[in-house]
Amino acid sequence: MQKGPYIENIREKQPVEGLYLVRDKNNGITKNGKPYIALNLSDKTGMIKGRVWDNAEKLDPGFDQGDVVFLKSHSVLYQGDMQLNVHAINRIAAEDADLSDFMPASSVDPEQAFADLQASIATINDPHLRRLLELIFEDARIVAAFKQAPAAKSIHHDCLGGLIEHTLSVTRIADMLAGHYATVNRDLLLAGAMLHDIGKIYELSFERSFDYTDEGRLIGHIVLGMELISDTIRLVPDFPAQKALLIKHMILSHHGQLEFGSPKRPKIPEALLLSYIDDIDAKMFDFTQFIEKEQRPETNWTGYHRLFNRYLYTGALAEKELPVPGADNGKPPKDV
Amino acid sequence: MQKGPYIENIREKQPVEGLYLVRDKNNGITKNGKPYIALNLSDKTGMIKGRVWDNAEKLDPGFDQGDVVFLKSHSVLYQGDMQLNVHAINRIAAEDADLSDFMPASSVDPEQAFADLQASIATINDPHLRRLLELIFEDARIVAAFKQAPAAKSIHHDCLGGLIEHTLSVTRIADMLAGHYATVNRDLLLAGAMLHDIGKIYELSFERSFDYTDEGRLIGHIVLGMELISDTIRLVPDFPAQKALLIKHMILSHHGQLEFGSPKRPKIPEALLLSYIDDIDAKMFDFTQFIEKEQRPETNWTGYHRLFNRYLYTGALAEKELPVPGADNGKPPKDV
Amino acid sequence: MQKGPYIENIREKQPVEGLYLVRDKNNGITKNGKPYIALNLSDKTGMIKGRVWDNAEKLDPGFDQGDVVFLKSHSVLYQGDMQLNVHAINRIAAEDADLSDFMPASSVDPEQAFADLQASIATINDPHLRRLLELIFEDARIVAAFKQAPAAKSIHHDCLGGLIEHTLSVTRIADMLAGHYATVNRDLLLAGAMLHDIGKIYELSFERSFDYTDEGRLIGHIVLGMELISDTIRLVPDFPAQKALLIKHMILSHHGQLEFGSPKRPKIPEALLLSYIDDIDAKMFDFTQFIEKEQRPETNWTGYHRLFNRYLYTGALAEKELPVPGADNGKPPKDV
Amino acid sequence: MQKGPYIENIREKQPVEGLYLVRDKNNGITKNGKPYIALNLSDKTGMIKGRVWDNAEKLDPGFDQGDVVFLKSHSVLYQGDMQLNVHAINRIAAEDADLSDFMPASSVDPEQAFADLQASIATINDPHLRRLLELIFEDARIVAAFKQAPAAKSIHHDCLGGLIEHTLSVTRIADMLAGHYATVNRDLLLAGAMLHDIGKIYELSFERSFDYTDEGRLIGHIVLGMELISDTIRLVPDFPAQKALLIKHMILSHHGQLEFGSPKRPKIPEALLLSYIDDIDAKMFDFTQFIEKEQRPETNWTGYHRLFNRYLYTGALAEKELPVPGADNGKPPKDV
Amino acid sequence: MQKGPYIENIREKQPVEGLYLVRDKNNGITKNGKPYIALNLSDKTGMIKGRVWDNAEKLDPGFDQGDVVFLKSHSVLYQGDMQLNVHAINRIAAEDADLSDFMPASSVDPEQAFADLQASIATINDPHLRRLLELIFEDARIVAAFKQAPAAKSIHHDCLGGLIEHTLSVTRIADMLAGHYATVNRDLLLAGAMLHDIGKIYELSFERSFDYTDEGRLIGHIVLGMELISDTIRLVPDFPAQKALLIKHMILSHHGQLEFGSPKRPKIPEALLLSYIDDIDAKMFDFTQFIEKEQRPETNWTGYHRLFNRYLYTGALAEKELPVPGADNGKPPKDV
Amino acid sequence: MQKGPYIENIREKQPVEGLYLVRDKNNGITKNGKPYIALNLSDKTGMIKGRVWDNAEKLDPGFDQGDVVFLKSHSVLYQGDMQLNVHAINRIAAEDADLSDFMPASSVDPEQAFADLQASIATINDPHLRRLLELIFEDARIVAAFKQAPAAKSIHHDCLGGLIEHTLSVTRIADMLAGHYATVNRDLLLAGAMLHDIGKIYELSFERSFDYTDEGRLIGHIVLGMELISDTIRLVPDFPAQKALLIKHMILSHHGQLEFGSPKRPKIPEALLLSYIDDIDAKMFDFTQFIEKEQRPETNWTGYHRLFNRYLYTGALAEKELPVPGADNGKPPKDV
Repeated sequence: MQKGPYIENIREKQPVEGLYLVRDKNNGITKNGKPYIALNLSDKTGMIKGRVWDNAEKLDPGFDQGDVVFLKSHSVLYQGDMQLNVHAINRIAAEDADLSDFMPASSVDPEQAFADLQASIATINDPHLRRLLELIFEDARIVAAFKQAPAAKSIHHDCLGGLIEHTLSVTRIADMLAGHYATVNRDLLLAGAMLHDIGKIYELSFERSFDYTDEGRLIGHIVLGMELISDTIRLVPDFPAQKALLIKHMILSHHGQLEFGSPKRPKIPEALLLSYIDDIDAKMFDFTQFIEKEQRPETNWTGYHRLFNRYLYTGALAEKELPVPGADNGKPPKDV
Repeated sequence: MQKGPYIENIREKQPVEGLYLVRDKNNGITKNGKPYIALNLSDKTGMIKGRVWDNAEKLDPGFDQGDVVFLKSHSVLYQGDMQLNVHAINRIAAEDADLSDFMPASSVDPEQAFADLQASIATINDPHLRRLLELIFEDARIVAAFKQAPAAKSIHHDCLGGLIEHTLSVTRIADMLAGHYATVNRDLLLAGAMLHDIGKIYELSFERSFDYTDEGRLIGHIVLGMELISDTIRLVPDFPAQKALLIKHMILSHHGQLEFGSPKRPKIPEALLLSYIDDIDAKMFDFTQFIEKEQRPETNWTGYHRLFNRYLYTGALAEKELPVPGADNGKPPKDV
Repeated sequence: MQKGPYIENIREKQPVEGLYLVRDKNNGITKNGKPYIALNLSDKTGMIKGRVWDNAEKLDPGFDQGDVVFLKSHSVLYQGDMQLNVHAINRIAAEDADLSDFMPASSVDPEQAFADLQASIATINDPHLRRLLELIFEDARIVAAFKQAPAAKSIHHDCLGGLIEHTLSVTRIADMLAGHYATVNRDLLLAGAMLHDIGKIYELSFERSFDYTDEGRLIGHIVLGMELISDTIRLVPDFPAQKALLIKHMILSHHGQLEFGSPKRPKIPEALLLSYIDDIDAKMFDFTQFIEKEQRPETNWTGYHRLFNRYLYTGALAEKELPVPGADNGKPPKDV
Repeated sequence: MQKGPYIENIREKQPVEGLYLVRDKNNGITKNGKPYIALNLSDKTGMIKGRVWDNAEKLDPGFDQGDVVFLKSHSVLYQGDMQLNVHAINRIAAEDADLSDFMPASSVDPEQAFADLQASIATINDPHLRRLLELIFEDARIVAAFKQAPAAKSIHHDCLGGLIEHTLSVTRIADMLAGHYATVNRDLLLAGAMLHDIGKIYELSFERSFDYTDEGRLIGHIVLGMELISDTIRLVPDFPAQKALLIKHMILSHHGQLEFGSPKRPKIPEALLLSYIDDIDAKMFDFTQFIEKEQRPETNWTGYHRLFNRYLYTGALAEKELPVPGADNGKPPKDV
Repeated sequence: MQKGPYIENIREKQPVEGLYLVRDKNNGITKNGKPYIALNLSDKTGMIKGRVWDNAEKLDPGFDQGDVVFLKSHSVLYQGDMQLNVHAINRIAAEDADLSDFMPASSVDPEQAFADLQASIATINDPHLRRLLELIFEDARIVAAFKQAPAAKSIHHDCLGGLIEHTLSVTRIADMLAGHYATVNRDLLLAGAMLHDIGKIYELSFERSFDYTDEGRLIGHIVLGMELISDTIRLVPDFPAQKALLIKHMILSHHGQLEFGSPKRPKIPEALLLSYIDDIDAKMFDFTQFIEKEQRPETNWTGYHRLFNRYLYTGALAEKELPVPGADNGKPPKDV
Repeated sequence: MQKGPYIENIREKQPVEGLYLVRDKNNGITKNGKPYIALNLSDKTGMIKGRVWDNAEKLDPGFDQGDVVFLKSHSVLYQGDMQLNVHAINRIAAEDADLSDFMPASSVDPEQAFADLQASIATINDPHLRRLLELIFEDARIVAAFKQAPAAKSIHHDCLGGLIEHTLSVTRIADMLAGHYATVNRDLLLAGAMLHDIGKIYELSFERSFDYTDEGRLIGHIVLGMELISDTIRLVPDFPAQKALLIKHMILSHHGQLEFGSPKRPKIPEALLLSYIDDIDAKMFDFTQFIEKEQRPETNWTGYHRLFNRYLYTGALAEKELPVPGADNGKPPKDV
């Protein structure tokens, strides 16, 4: 069965038919005493409301929250929001659905990104740090999760593949700055960059929706990542004790401040740089994604951004794009 | 050779002879071009300045900073401070000095405190947590350090034996409150209480002076302690994964707030209680010790306490002590 | 007339008949121009929406906001919320309603709690502090309010009897810690514990709903309580001036920090302890009550707690309760 | 005996003879073993160091800290500070010293200021508030202290008469703004202005030096002032309860924010205005006094002001004064 | 065509006919598939919802968001809110509408306020500052905008004419305080007062609704105002450089603190005073307007004020107004 | 005459002769009544105390604070600090001193750095921004100051040439990140990078010592720089208004947060990046310079860094340098 039209493309008064993910399902009863079902449906492009007004009792047993369903409906605009009036709806077997259709995904190809990371590992001169990286990124279960995980539940890089996209971006900037600041230990900085968020593969669950695991909420990715590194270091012969302290310190301090969850603040230049780069990459992702999403013809400004606590200017982006040649290359002009 | 009079007892214009610890040593030269040596000398009751005005060049090679020395001197009052004018000074062999004479020590007997802790361990019903505690507190090297370590470099319980004194006090209060709040898991709370600061045996060095180790500054006692627990849990057969998460969470969250260095805030009642008890015991130690130290006949107030950012009232203590019968029982009237 | 089924027990599609409290009443008009009445109804177990769709104009004069009413209805589920479709509704005389049916109440028996407090007063050695406590807790009007008042409008112990429940709990912990810390003046600490929130009987109104009084908002329970103590001290012969200062300081400083409304921070150990105990008892109430209320089979986590600014773990409680024998002992399983 | 030259006027290498206040006295011993005495001496214009190098043991018993002494000395510049080498020094009888010579005093005449305040009281229309003011400002002991007290130990208006100077200034601005904002209750605002700091007569001690009393540190002037008002209100027949709440609220909230020690924040416009006016008058005093004191020919800037956390510009004042005609009118050019 | 009844006066079940401003317009579709239009309508007294249930498709093209419309309707109460059921609606030509009917306007006459400001300018003695003020307030485009602009988008003085009302109020208080504090340079303070918010004519757009301009969000009124002053100073012959620095500093520092958007904090007394006066006038406007708007018979308290983060007392105002004689003097009793 | 040995190289008990800058000069008098002179002397490598014990009255008129002097002395260690006992001292003519000997200077050659910046300007595609940059960096007076100015009075890059060193470093990182983030407008980001601190040439004075100018303290480099840009833009034909807003916004927002003195926070991605890069470069300078300066054999840790509020680890740097081949390339191993 086929995916229906992407939710971001659904317009008023059209028939809509195909596969969607049921995020929420609630049974209700109208004032006339007639049962109905209220739904939130999603795919990787967004979320839309659904209503089963007719045959609700008959259709009810055919699907549940969390199912991928095949449905038939038509779209209406209700109080400013698009909504699907659903006529038919039925779950499909889990194996018949391609999950990547239903969850937002990074625009970066995780296989290519992983190959790029491996190429970076090969440039590490320090034998202990390189071996540590190799051991971690040779573990099939780690790699599988690392390629699929988001970088966050709901802030930056909150999409499948977001973790590897962010990790690669941080690693590349780290490489640039290691070249710029001559006193910086490039091997230590790059190893820290590649491993800084590795604990997120344990902190987050990312099947059908993104959420925190128990480990994530009780221990957190900073300490989970450091434990993985501690355990792996024991497998590297003669890993010097001081070097082990320093790479662990890189992970522990990468949020930069205690109040952001780092139990230690950076005390070596490499850790200071890593905390800045991590912050820049997360903020730039949010900033540019929000500006892109909130482009509106009638204004130069986005709506209010709660985390940045401000309105962002969308006009600059528009201006800049004019002279970009070859933007009509068939894919969206911006990939961030 | 004998310890000299305790520094807190030295009065003006008396001869002072015996053993002291050289905390700082600086060579100087008077305006007349005559060399002298400026010292800070200490024993477990405090610190005093020393000056070698005569024969400085001859006496200089006989001792160094960090040495225990035998000296002969007389005391003078200089600009409000007591000071020793030193006539003779020479290091003694390290093995001839009883370190506990020269560093402040808890008023609590560490052997008794450790026996009390072991009695508490025996009351833990949960077999996995009890085994975890037994394994840690059976390790001779851990126990030796645990009995001697201070609880802090310079804030609360900054004395030899301070760590075990504080740990026992926290454990006892935890036991009281576990009885008071019926829904609290006593075993989890007491295990957390006994282990919460165990990482300090690695965070601090405490030979001749208290300081942070490299591990202490780069990793910190919270994560160091959690690592010890992680490693020990692997030695306990069938330790349930969830229980492991919870005891580790107790350690990680025991500073209560991110900005105090906990990478996670308490998310179970037992962790919330532990963070409060730890804070109470540290603050009560400081509060009462400062009030006791700053008793002055001419005023009801201590000097300014930098960390509490206030003056404390000393009058209440005085008033309270009047009716206490039997205070002359041979031991110091206050044990905190 | 009889109380109807408790709101927390009402299920879909059942007839509901009996007494409820009208918390809000709003008249509306449907799109068809038909008048209706929208209600919020409550009893001590919670709140439920009500709708009068038929005969609204006729039933309207028979009751008002704030009334206890006898109603007949049936329950429906509407947009995920339970709701009563009301057919008949009429106020009953105030004297026919037992207010404790309609407002949340502490699980602690106020008479027993008061007896326990009086027993504590009898253990106070200091004659002036004991006389002060006796005078306050002999005043019939104070005692009546003290037994009934909540401890807060909407945070911790926000139920009838909450003030005495919280006061007794704080007093008991104070007694434990007075035994633990030898330098603490037990009499002063316990007197402070028993009186710390006495001003809340003036700060809050608690008839049919909990709200602040004018005194509460303009003066506040800290100063109101201190004024009561000031006035009562004048009735105690020869109350020493210094002791009066100290007990007043205990009340003024019990929020611990200026920004929490204490005009003075603790400057004696007893005041420091009281501020901690008060905070612990309030936070433990919230923490455990929220975890209990938010137990859900599909997750180990509560929803987001706005004041604690976090999610709490419910799994620990579940685990812990399994092995508790004899929980079916006829009283509520948790007393906090 | 006569006051010696004012300390602010003492220049290098001059004989200095007359009366001074001994603020601190410490006995010392030189490197040659000769005893000496180190002093801090003050009068209302400032502080100066004194040293008794000769005859220290003989002169020692003749005076103590806190005494007014008659001394003979000559001035020297030592390490950038002026210092008196004292040859003779002896206490004089307390009744022979005019305290106002030795402590900084407001440039405002307290008698005139009090007359001005009484004139303001007479303009209050509200009979209860006017009676309250009259009763307080008819009490001889209150009035005597009120005319002499400083407004602070060491920040703004920290001089004898500073309290009445500040109170009058706040009252006058309150009067202006009551005229400007038509909805403001002038009587309430002015009563609040006149009474807002009355508690400082109990909070501070101001004999020979300024310090906090026990009441000041344990209760504070805000609550002490409110208690005086509470007690006096009972003496005013038929004082309306609501009005009593409001005038007490004016006092309690006059620091504007909880973190500045007000247990309640302003909830009526009059209280909001009072908190602003109090703050303006204190800050303007500090700002202008500091600029005046720190006028230096070589720069347009004061030294660093710790409380304002900035450097202030002194050039504006200089510029402004040039064109002011008739500044030589016999009174000090600045009255702040 | 005529303005309809003011929105604040519309009561339930009355016919409503006349001119209103369409603030928002959204098309919807009922569950029965019938199109309707949801509106927000406003005039200078407030906002009301409108619904076009019948003939929505026919009436839809006749008006748009932002239009002034002539409508016919009747009022109903729906879920506690008043609402207009609209039968007929059509835009009118922009030139037929008097904008001041549809946007909130200051109660102060802008022409009178401007005349008052000009009178103040004439009292400035300093020739350069006076000329600067004259040049700015002689520019016809500036003056036109200055008379019409609000002082804020949505906080204080958010009404047509609000800027000049606030500027005049600040100037008057500045004049009072310049008289009170003898060392203050009156000319500098008054010039600062009159110019402090002049940049708001560029920061805000105020046609049909209040919003920020691009300049407003990217540069801000503080710097925009300073730039206007910089440019105008070049037109004043021989304007002294130091005086230019000081008047620019007055503008730059008038928010008092960096975190409120001032790039410099006050460093002269005049700037300190201006920052206080600006703050007082804004807060007093909000405070008194909110209290006035939230007068409700059943309570002495307003609802929660989000910015002040508190409830305000309305009882004081009521009490105060009773004895005010001659309030019926033909103008609104409150001018704020 | 010749510069004496660099201050950082002076060791105990050596003769020291040559040119130094007199930073402070104070006359004193010993206890024996003998006059002396206390000096602070500096060159570009640091500061040292000087004392004229003999012939002070004779030598006194020969030099003043701020002079470059030729002196003869010998070095002694006094209370842990090195000090020069001065026998002869005399000012030299200003033109005989090379100021760069006496003030710390960047290790970067300002001419080379300026050439690099000009090369960057040539890569700007946007004609208006490029013209703006050309006009500013063609102005001889601006360029002269820009090459010499420090970047701060006392924090990062506080050395002659520090401004151009920092500006070039920020520009290079900006170029890297413009390549990394595809949606970023490179021209706008680089123009912002090159101009962000240009106002510092007016904010700071840097002759013989670094200090703030009146403009610096009253207006600040952010607004001073923006004014220069505003004025220069008027000289560029047809500079688009929107582009002018954006480049001005880049300058105004480059401190990132209001509390750091930016009157606007970044609202475009380019401004966000610039604020991060500026912060990174300043912090990396401080971090690495402090670690380098505080290398001590006996510890892996620096002293306490007041601004970073922590101790930094020096061990990593040492470790890193060991394996770096070719470090003996004739230039200092670290260029930051």
